[in-house]
Amino acid sequence: MFKVYFATSNKGKFLEVKRLAEAFSLQVEQAPIKGVEIQHESLAEIASQAVRQAYRKLKAPVMVEDAGLFIEALNGFPGPYSSYVYRKLGVQGILKLMEGERNRRAWFLSALAFKAPKMKVKVFLGRVDGEIVLQARGRKGFGFDPIFQPEGEKRTFAEMEPEEKNRFSHRGKALAELAEWLKKRGYI
Amino acid sequence: MFKVYFATSNKGKFLEVKRLAEAFSLQVEQAPIKGVEIQHESLAEIASQAVRQAYRKLKAPVMVEDAGLFIEALNGFPGPYSSYVYRKLGVQGILKLMEGERNRRAWFLSALAFKAPKMKVKVFLGRVDGEIVLQARGRKGFGFDPIFQPEGEKRTFAEMEPEEKNRFSHRGKALAELAEWLKKRGYI
Repeated sequence: MFKVYFATSNKGKFLEVKRLAEAFSLQVEQAPIKGVEIQHESLAEIASQAVRQAYRKLKAPVMVEDAGLFIEALNGFPGPYSSYVYRKLGVQGILKLMEGERNRRAWFLSALAFKAPKMKVKVFLGRVDGEIVLQARGRKGFGFDPIFQPEGEKRTFAEMEPEEKNRFSHRGKALAELAEWLKKRGYI
Repeated sequence: MFKVYFATSNKGKFLEVKRLAEAFSLQVEQAPIKGVEIQHESLAEIASQAVRQAYRKLKAPVMVEDAGLFIEALNGFPGPYSSYVYRKLGVQGILKLMEGERNRRAWFLSALAFKAPKMKVKVFLGRVDGEIVLQARGRKGFGFDPIFQPEGEKRTFAEMEPEEKNRFSHRGKALAELAEWLKKRGYI
């Protein structure tokens, strides 16, 4: 199996990606190095710069993922700063900001940046559309999963088993793109 | 007069600092280069890294200031991401998050990083304590000024003339520290 490091300090994210990757014959190993994330409104830019740094340390195939929840009525907030906002305000903070708001449209975006020897950084994007529910539901997943319900579903991400969530998920889509790209080039 | 570049794209901030600096015999010139700001919960760290980048381009005395509004009841939110949060949620977003909250304590923090030839980066900090008012008041200043009232005052920053605000302000304090340091070394 093709082995790729995943530079992240987020255990929940690591486990989710590791599970997803197995379906694509990708062996993912956690590299708990904390890349510096720049302040930028583009997830792709943040992930690209972080994977470059991680590659300099590891000198082996490595990926970095940056994801965010974008809420239309809040002009895209919390976007690239989702994990900071989650730590400070939690799901309740977002629900409070959304009180009385009829436009509940939101999407999760994932930018997966990959770097291997003798190649430029490649970024793969995944997106899932859905809505911010009125009350948090479910205890699975992590982050804002309890308040996000993907389109055409009656359950939030936090009410789904990992395998179900992964069928929809932004992260799963980005990883599928990476896997396809690796396959085309004969890596896997 | 000793000349120092101020690397910022924020015109309001530049004018405020320029005015403040005159009192210290410091001539400030805007260098509209946008340093990359890292994602970090320490303003000092963000400003230090940005001033290092700006210095590499300018090769002349330069400063970068990073400031944030820290709200106790929101675990320090919006903190280092204040300008992003201001753009996305505005003062109304903060007031909404603070609805029903009795602890209104908050403080502005300013980290001013300075770099000149043949010296390491120095960081000067300034802080002003106060509270988040119940309704926005005033039209002066910029950012979260209309909802911040410094201790012992009955007006928000946005209700004060620039000279008054500067007597209290976090930014004024950090700049005074820098001026004192420059004076000790005979620069001004």
